[in-house]
Amino acid sequence: MNAKDILMKAVQCDKDGRILEAQDLYQDGIQILMELVGDEKDTAKKKVYLERIKEYIDRAEQIKLRVQKHMESGEIVANIPIDDNSTGHSYKSLFGKYLNGAVKEILIDEPYFTERYQFQNFIVLLELAVKQCKNLKYVRVVTKPDPKNPAGQNSMMKNIKDDLTQRGITLSIKFEATLHDRKIILSNGYIIKIGRGLHFFKPTNPQYTLGLCDYDYRNCLQTDVDICRTKTFS
Amino acid sequence: MNAKDILMKAVQCDKDGRILEAQDLYQDGIQILMELVGDEKDTAKKKVYLERIKEYIDRAEQIKLRVQKHMESGEIVANIPIDDNSTGHSYKSLFGKYLNGAVKEILIDEPYFTERYQFQNFIVLLELAVKQCKNLKYVRVVTKPDPKNPAGQNSMMKNIKDDLTQRGITLSIKFEATLHDRKIILSNGYIIKIGRGLHFFKPTNPQYTLGLCDYDYRNCLQTDVDICRTKTFS
Repeated sequence: MNAKDILMKAVQCDKDGRILEAQDLYQDGIQILMELVGDEKDTAKKKVYLERIKEYIDRAEQIKLRVQKHMESGEIVANIPIDDNSTGHSYKSLFGKYLNGAVKEILIDEPYFTERYQFQNFIVLLELAVKQCKNLKYVRVVTKPDPKNPAGQNSMMKNIKDDLTQRGITLSIKFEATLHDRKIILSNGYIIKIGRGLHFFKPTNPQYTLGLCDYDYRNCLQTDVDICRTKTFS
Repeated sequence: MNAKDILMKAVQCDKDGRILEAQDLYQDGIQILMELVGDEKDTAKKKVYLERIKEYIDRAEQIKLRVQKHMESGEIVANIPIDDNSTGHSYKSLFGKYLNGAVKEILIDEPYFTERYQFQNFIVLLELAVKQCKNLKYVRVVTKPDPKNPAGQNSMMKNIKDDLTQRGITLSIKFEATLHDRKIILSNGYIIKIGRGLHFFKPTNPQYTLGLCDYDYRNCLQTDVDICRTKTFS
């Protein structure tokens, strides 16, 4: 897509309440416009480009503020303490009821996606979200880059991204080396904060026993889950 | 347990509608009585033992006939054709609604439990059954022995058996080298016949994509599912 198409799509997403996707598209569009400005000799055209760039930077900034504000203004609707070795705490049991048709976008801040079981946890979450959020269009994951095996991490993420693309869902992956916070933000106004992030399940032992696929059977590590409600994105 | 305790438990199970478990217990009890008869010198006592053995053989035989009759007298309540590469056919989607509180016993005839994915299918079925059948006490699996790796097969089955024991459920495994039929018989009167047995799911490809744990996302092999309703065991 050229800058015009990208920015038109960004504006459309913005109107549609898909603000995380709009933010990404604004940034992509700004990037392309910046390159065009560099190559442009005509001062008048250059000025038009720069005005446009400023406009879209403002819009992207507004979205950032909106998401921040969204997170600050929440009221806690549930606090679920998970005891060490307790069971019955699959993602579905914990927060499945908030994953509904009103969710268009999901933002997942989770520092660790490097081990296979961590990718499995991500897939189990997506299996749930895709099934229940019939209008899901966009998932953004923010995670730490894997210093040991960046190619493996990219390849795993690419496979999942391709899978979601076939289902009409965009997966955007952002790497932040210093990420610590864990949270899941749903565009319907719910925020799920789990002390340990997604990875609070102990492995089945022996491996091939109940809990292999249904996490309600898994023993858990001690952690706390807070669920907050704020306004919707749009 | 001694023969008396085993046979008392058998009679109790029989009364309780847990006839598969009763059948196993009768057979175990008969086995012990047969050994006692062999060692017994007193003719009068020997005669008592033999009468008892005959009585329990009759009871076990009656159960066998009851299960057979149970299977013949069914009416088909659902026929679900599964197309090659279609999705949405997890065990839960296909027959989850029949796995309810009225199920005390399940009989699974499935020729193949040798590969890891086949044990995974078994576990996924058990995860569903244990969650939904709150009164489940007994599961009998009839399968072919693995000629290549019998120790591996026994070890996998033992892990699953130990897991179920902790949940108050007895898993009994019978090996039949010539088994061909596939079916799942629920003691609440439903019989599920799947042309290919439990193993009609294609693997996820790439492995770490949606469908890893939730089989509704798996592409299927072509097969047919018939669900029949008969009388309950008891």
